Amino acid sequence: MDAYAARKLNKVRVGNRAAYDKETVNAVLDEGLVAHVGFVDRDRPIVIPMIYGRVDDTLYLHGAKATRFVKALGKGVPVCVTVTLIDGIVVGRSAFHSSMNYRSVVAHGQARLLTDEDERIRAMTVLTDHMLPGRWDEARPASEKELKATGIIAAAIEAASAKARTGDPIDEDDDYALPVWGGVVPVHTIFGVPQDDCRLAAGTVVPASVAQLLKRNGD
Amino acid sequence: MDAYAARKLNKVRVGNRAAYDKETVNAVLDEGLVAHVGFVDRDRPIVIPMIYGRVDDTLYLHGAKATRFVKALGKGVPVCVTVTLIDGIVVGRSAFHSSMNYRSVVAHGQARLLTDEDERIRAMTVLTDHMLPGRWDEARPASEKELKATGIIAAAIEAASAKARTGDPIDEDDDYALPVWGGVVPVHTIFGVPQDDCRLAAGTVVPASVAQLLKRNGD
Repeated sequence: MDAYAARKLNKVRVGNRAAYDKETVNAVLDEGLVAHVGFVDRDRPIVIPMIYGRVDDTLYLHGAKATRFVKALGKGVPVCVTVTLIDGIVVGRSAFHSSMNYRSVVAHGQARLLTDEDERIRAMTVLTDHMLPGRWDEARPASEKELKATGIIAAAIEAASAKARTGDPIDEDDDYALPVWGGVVPVHTIFGVPQDDCRLAAGTVVPASVAQLLKRNGD
Repeated sequence: MDAYAARKLNKVRVGNRAAYDKETVNAVLDEGLVAHVGFVDRDRPIVIPMIYGRVDDTLYLHGAKATRFVKALGKGVPVCVTVTLIDGIVVGRSAFHSSMNYRSVVAHGQARLLTDEDERIRAMTVLTDHMLPGRWDEARPASEKELKATGIIAAAIEAASAKARTGDPIDEDDDYALPVWGGVVPVHTIFGVPQDDCRLAAGTVVPASVAQLLKRNGD
């Protein structure tokens, strides 16, 4: 099975919760809405929530060219991209065995500022279509001015790991007899009814990309 | 109004989306389920999703003492704690003006390993009660062994900023006439029906802490 590198950098301590195969890692990356992107700026860690996209083993990020984010990452620094999907709150009989059910990916790479215009356009398409597949083609094409104002960062994944927890709490044997509730409270991310812009042109209806997003509620 | 420090480290470029007052920042910190915690390990940024808690201007994190996370932060390094609440997907007529509605906080501090046992217990209470207020008192008390196995990290907030986007897309004037849908798809975090542990003791019912969590669905 095709897998991402497991190095000291990204090896998960508790092996039975870890996966490195690309199918598992990419499934989490593709379901997330926002990544938390970490980089080092003047010896300090900075973590910023970002829209992102993926093609094969490359992650894409973007921002206005004036942002600290684009300026810092454009220098080609190491980057850590973490995506977390929360599935439930695990309520153990003890605080110690309480936890979360989740799927997360921690991916490491080197940031690279894209300069090739074709690659930039492909990356923008991916960033737009990540949440709303097909949106790039539905939307008004990007103008020269918009393209110029946008900085695109790519990071080839050098090492990545997925981590997941599922199911009931794992309590101490003696604790199961206690009159203390244990179980899981599921957590769902739900897309609500699309709200028309207050200036929507007459006769304009919700597009395929949005309709497709709403289908994810059934998963 | 009481505010967190706004420094070069955390100043938000687009001023009208930023807030530094403690009421706004703390409201985001108190609503989030998971923080993305950044630190630097051998010159690389590491971002890990973590349960967390807050008292006044101090954030608490915890983990097994054996984890890289606790070992690295226990040395007293700079830490960045980011919490993001996703409120909607903003669908502009152009990709450029598409975005997310969100509330996020980026908080910076120095990690500190707690050693005082009273402070450690208070921190564990806060970590447990963050999502489930009152759970610490409902649960079986922590054992000596559990206390020993747990590392608790505190970080006094030195600088923090909240950032938020709300409302419709801000499209180009000419774009409003286009036959392209624009609007917002709300994103909700919903707590599902509590699932009893398959080994639940007979007669045990969902506790007040969980019932209180479910009330958040109505917000």
